Amino acid sequence: MSTKLNRRLRLGMVGGGPGAFIGAVHRAAARLDDRFELVAAALSSDAEKSRAYASELRIPRVYSSFQEMADAEAKHPEPIDVVAIVTPNHMHHPIAKAFLAAGIHVMCDKPLTTNLTDADDLAAAVASTGLIFGVTQSYSGYPMVRQMREIVTTGGIGAVRMIQAEYAQGWLATKLEDTGAKQAAWRTDPAKSGPAGCLGDIATHAFHTACFITGLKPKEVAADLSTFVEGRRLDDNVQAMLHFEGGAKASLWSSQIAIGEENNLNIRVYGEKGSLTWHQENPNYVQHAPLGEPTRILTRGGAGVTASPAAGTRLPTGHPEGYFEAFATLYSDIAEQIVARLEGREADASSRLLPTVADGVAGVRFIEAVLKSSANASAWTPLS
Amino acid sequence: MSTKLNRRLRLGMVGGGPGAFIGAVHRAAARLDDRFELVAAALSSDAEKSRAYASELRIPRVYSSFQEMADAEAKHPEPIDVVAIVTPNHMHHPIAKAFLAAGIHVMCDKPLTTNLTDADDLAAAVASTGLIFGVTQSYSGYPMVRQMREIVTTGGIGAVRMIQAEYAQGWLATKLEDTGAKQAAWRTDPAKSGPAGCLGDIATHAFHTACFITGLKPKEVAADLSTFVEGRRLDDNVQAMLHFEGGAKASLWSSQIAIGEENNLNIRVYGEKGSLTWHQENPNYVQHAPLGEPTRILTRGGAGVTASPAAGTRLPTGHPEGYFEAFATLYSDIAEQIVARLEGREADASSRLLPTVADGVAGVRFIEAVLKSSANASAWTPLS
Amino acid sequence: MSTKLNRRLRLGMVGGGPGAFIGAVHRAAARLDDRFELVAAALSSDAEKSRAYASELRIPRVYSSFQEMADAEAKHPEPIDVVAIVTPNHMHHPIAKAFLAAGIHVMCDKPLTTNLTDADDLAAAVASTGLIFGVTQSYSGYPMVRQMREIVTTGGIGAVRMIQAEYAQGWLATKLEDTGAKQAAWRTDPAKSGPAGCLGDIATHAFHTACFITGLKPKEVAADLSTFVEGRRLDDNVQAMLHFEGGAKASLWSSQIAIGEENNLNIRVYGEKGSLTWHQENPNYVQHAPLGEPTRILTRGGAGVTASPAAGTRLPTGHPEGYFEAFATLYSDIAEQIVARLEGREADASSRLLPTVADGVAGVRFIEAVLKSSANASAWTPLS
Amino acid sequence: MSTKLNRRLRLGMVGGGPGAFIGAVHRAAARLDDRFELVAAALSSDAEKSRAYASELRIPRVYSSFQEMADAEAKHPEPIDVVAIVTPNHMHHPIAKAFLAAGIHVMCDKPLTTNLTDADDLAAAVASTGLIFGVTQSYSGYPMVRQMREIVTTGGIGAVRMIQAEYAQGWLATKLEDTGAKQAAWRTDPAKSGPAGCLGDIATHAFHTACFITGLKPKEVAADLSTFVEGRRLDDNVQAMLHFEGGAKASLWSSQIAIGEENNLNIRVYGEKGSLTWHQENPNYVQHAPLGEPTRILTRGGAGVTASPAAGTRLPTGHPEGYFEAFATLYSDIAEQIVARLEGREADASSRLLPTVADGVAGVRFIEAVLKSSANASAWTPLS
Repeated sequence: MSTKLNRRLRLGMVGGGPGAFIGAVHRAAARLDDRFELVAAALSSDAEKSRAYASELRIPRVYSSFQEMADAEAKHPEPIDVVAIVTPNHMHHPIAKAFLAAGIHVMCDKPLTTNLTDADDLAAAVASTGLIFGVTQSYSGYPMVRQMREIVTTGGIGAVRMIQAEYAQGWLATKLEDTGAKQAAWRTDPAKSGPAGCLGDIATHAFHTACFITGLKPKEVAADLSTFVEGRRLDDNVQAMLHFEGGAKASLWSSQIAIGEENNLNIRVYGEKGSLTWHQENPNYVQHAPLGEPTRILTRGGAGVTASPAAGTRLPTGHPEGYFEAFATLYSDIAEQIVARLEGREADASSRLLPTVADGVAGVRFIEAVLKSSANASAWTPLS
Repeated sequence: MSTKLNRRLRLGMVGGGPGAFIGAVHRAAARLDDRFELVAAALSSDAEKSRAYASELRIPRVYSSFQEMADAEAKHPEPIDVVAIVTPNHMHHPIAKAFLAAGIHVMCDKPLTTNLTDADDLAAAVASTGLIFGVTQSYSGYPMVRQMREIVTTGGIGAVRMIQAEYAQGWLATKLEDTGAKQAAWRTDPAKSGPAGCLGDIATHAFHTACFITGLKPKEVAADLSTFVEGRRLDDNVQAMLHFEGGAKASLWSSQIAIGEENNLNIRVYGEKGSLTWHQENPNYVQHAPLGEPTRILTRGGAGVTASPAAGTRLPTGHPEGYFEAFATLYSDIAEQIVARLEGREADASSRLLPTVADGVAGVRFIEAVLKSSANASAWTPLS
Repeated sequence: MSTKLNRRLRLGMVGGGPGAFIGAVHRAAARLDDRFELVAAALSSDAEKSRAYASELRIPRVYSSFQEMADAEAKHPEPIDVVAIVTPNHMHHPIAKAFLAAGIHVMCDKPLTTNLTDADDLAAAVASTGLIFGVTQSYSGYPMVRQMREIVTTGGIGAVRMIQAEYAQGWLATKLEDTGAKQAAWRTDPAKSGPAGCLGDIATHAFHTACFITGLKPKEVAADLSTFVEGRRLDDNVQAMLHFEGGAKASLWSSQIAIGEENNLNIRVYGEKGSLTWHQENPNYVQHAPLGEPTRILTRGGAGVTASPAAGTRLPTGHPEGYFEAFATLYSDIAEQIVARLEGREADASSRLLPTVADGVAGVRFIEAVLKSSANASAWTPLS
Repeated sequence: MSTKLNRRLRLGMVGGGPGAFIGAVHRAAARLDDRFELVAAALSSDAEKSRAYASELRIPRVYSSFQEMADAEAKHPEPIDVVAIVTPNHMHHPIAKAFLAAGIHVMCDKPLTTNLTDADDLAAAVASTGLIFGVTQSYSGYPMVRQMREIVTTGGIGAVRMIQAEYAQGWLATKLEDTGAKQAAWRTDPAKSGPAGCLGDIATHAFHTACFITGLKPKEVAADLSTFVEGRRLDDNVQAMLHFEGGAKASLWSSQIAIGEENNLNIRVYGEKGSLTWHQENPNYVQHAPLGEPTRILTRGGAGVTASPAAGTRLPTGHPEGYFEAFATLYSDIAEQIVARLEGREADASSRLLPTVADGVAGVRFIEAVLKSSANASAWTPLS
């Protein structure tokens, strides 16, 4: 990515107060490639906390609420270029609406919203404002995931037949939400997470990553949700079978009660002429098995790895990059899109791999279809 | 296993002619622990071929047909103790019946039969004759699979919640059956395989291994069969979701079009207090993740591996055992059962891990339920 | 790390111009935890290049030479707190001396110098000025390397007997230095690298990491250097056997002609009561094998991982951290040391794991001893 | 391998009494491919034990001593074709001599003898009798080791530069020989093992496997032997650097005190055009990294695996073979050589990969050179 803009972009943040996990990730990711300066924030619904933490983080402009922030930034002589929304799910919709209305680009965490009506509403707002809207389906930022996408979409493994998409964790195998653990509490609370637990939190990542890599359009799903931990209010295990346009199929499993699993997003794609395998926990490698030939190990930045995924590579092969770097690539993507617009030029092609509001809507539609199928004896339920 | 019997057992074989894969495996497996002598055979439906190949294998008594063999062995002064049935699936039922009628114990390849009526009929014949009947669900012979069973059934990972059972191969990713490949031809021919392709050939192994390890009773299945290779007459990809008595669930995937996969039987069991993972292609290891503790790597014959699985271990840790050794353990199991009966004593407990005709029936029932569910929009279909 | 200092530290940089690898790593690492602002630089020996690149990087104060920079910063009202030296090896000594003389803390890349005289001279300058001096032996910043150090130095595997230290790369398997590749050119040029090639570039990392983890004091070395690529002017393969005080031994292998190896730093430590294994290319895991128990997989931030290494952990288990994060930990270490001094308090214990000038001197002493041993028929040569 | 001989070969065995590890391995290995019948034995130096155990194993001809056996078999109308010598090391020489004198082919365990004089004497006896003499350097029987040999010796990775050969175990990390463990006792007793402990037991395997794969001629060695367990009478850790004719080098490490290691023979070969890596504990795979291309995973019997190694493959890819099967290949090799001689034809080329008395002599020479070098401050010591 190249730019003539002689300043860093101005970033704002809503959410991400003390103890939040994903807010700190967004901040570090935005910092890594040095394209942003965090200049404004409403970090917490508690204005006092927000102020204190912003001072600790050395953020100059602090606001008491997202609405106040949107209003003020809209009028500021040097307004933020983009706002990062990193609150619990139920707040994504009103906050995003407010900033779009203020004419400010948005980087929103996932799932986009807690229901499809809100998601469609946001998509409409993005369309009508023409603003840039990114969704941090973070795994699409991994260079080797982008490499898989490039191989699949250029026919490198032939027509896709079968996908195995897994995202398993074990940290909610016991009733952690009763112990005061903040991360567990809001994720298992329907008021904050919406009607989906594991489904909204991580199954959506498995779903998006599978779609991102293959470019396939999902058709229908047959799903079985479970709540294995007694008394939990949302699902903690998701099983699904999927059909795609064109005949491809997928099995999807996502769980937060899988003891021994940490953050095991694991995608395998089998086509007519080869297959690809990727494991998030050791993300710098892809196994590529061409039909009738030995399996090859592709490495980030290594031999046989083609141009566009390399855009997200900062280090020589063998020097591992991880989750921060993948996330940072999404921030560099939106930076490039914003700068290109400021400079009146086309954004680099690879920057357009940033997940969009449409991806966010598809994720919410997936959630609703899975909920419906599971409630209906796993009947096949449309995804489009 | 100890014995006072001062001879090797006499083994007969039906099927396993030149070019057959599994017949040679049975012979090597029976030889490995030196408990058997192969003394009689009807190796091929072509009597001439049978005779020639038996001579090459130095098998003294050769027969033109299984019926002739059963009749003759029944009257022989030193009859075979047990017959191994290693023909294509559609012949298992008549051959097994013939030898049971002749009073001869049976070791039968899987799937037991091509339909449930025949399977039930065989089970009845076993019950009425009281003979020993083993089914070579071979993966149950791996020491680490037995170790997993011991851990699970003694409560080592608590109540089972979720099972991931996969068995993926890629060798039928193209229409190999049109190229003269014998192994591909009969497996994709409904007349020889019955109505199930990949389902009968390997999904049954994944199903049995999951049941064997957990001791759980399957309740119902929702399945989606595919035939990805155009013109193929049987399924080549199986997706299923399962419910077990007591609330456990499973995802099962089995495929023969998964390029890059060789013989990837892969079982993961997640319970309330821990999980276990095993990969057939590197079978001497199990990963055990206890809740809240680091994952441990259990190795065949190594520290923390308890007694009964060790029975199937012939070499010190680090000296890999493989498929032959697992298979040989099933032969040693049936040897022990036969000798114990000859000696009028109880067979060793571990020898009773040999899959029985009931396991074979359960496998056929699984096949029929999957076929029915898949034909019925993946509706949940009873497994018992 | 906590601080009351209400500003970021001011960082300067010498070296790290366009095309340099390690300069960009230092900058990103310094940025990741948001403790530094890069405010001054002499990025290149070519003043024009330096100016242009500094402008692109938005560094406000640009200098034509390191000496000009040291002089000016010494008098600046808001001088840099610390300078990062990221030039080729032969320049480390004069630059470090200049900034120490200017009263500025130093973060210096490795190897410290190209000869022991210079190294000792620097150590003396550090001692006499009392300034903070870090050496970016970057692998010591990995949380799991620090975890190993904690396990070993608290007796967790008993007295160390044997270390296997490897650092293998393959990128110099052909004469890359003749192709215009800048990274290859200076590394194989004695005028810029000093008398050691692979030895100074990466074997020193293997050596330092082994010493860091075990806390052992090296005694003597028997080494065999090779130059496998014809016409290369420095070694490209290092074999060594080491003796430590107290009886431990090590084998060390480092190579840049090992095709297929990317950045394979791989450390195994065997003690009387257990062993530890770590691979840099998948750095979030350590295998710990206690005597007579199954091997355990320790994961960054996971169960059984103790406090001080966790200090360098920014993400939950299963979200991989990599090379940038390890490097960033060294920058946070020096930040904490500097801030503690400004605040007149003790620095956090974990920040003192930052490699010091003494570690740098030990590295140069290792280089000289290996060169001497190899030139002397691999005779055992003192390391202290 | 094809044969017209219409009988199994007659095998005799000396050593391998109750509790012996390697005797049982030889018997199973000889049985696996059904080319041998074990008809004669002197299993133990205790004639009574020998008789009882032979009866249990159903071996018809039992002898009180190896000499009695050699004498009797020489005169027997149906004498053994070959004798397997599986005693402790110090007995290999006299027993082998006796059977060679009796005109009987020999399969001898390794190390060949406990000193070079005996080894040379045996080689002379083999030469003068013209008999077939195999040495069970068992790792050369693995199909993927043979595949590596084929790749290297046909130039597939160019001229070899560097070899990393490791063989690490942990079972002697404590003084097991004091606990009554038979396997530990004789291996650490100079009277039975000769002057080498770990060196003779397993370092010789690493040495032989490296030479077998590369076909290189070793020139000199610089070695450092250790005895880490206090009071042990032989070495338990071997470090060595090697030079080969033509400029290749190797590092060799072998240990029996490496806790956590089971039977970790691990060979890496780096050439001018690529590299190969193999791990005994998961022996069905080789990693092949060609210069400038992605690393490939070669699998036993899989794509890209060439003819002669396939000779030792009995199962389809993905069905793991292990240690018994590798060992069995050596028995099939000697079977083929014996039968070819009986039939007056050339033995199959692959059967001649069986290690010979010359390999045995080279192993003993390696042992003596390492002992000498280690005693002489690791001075470079000739290997030829």
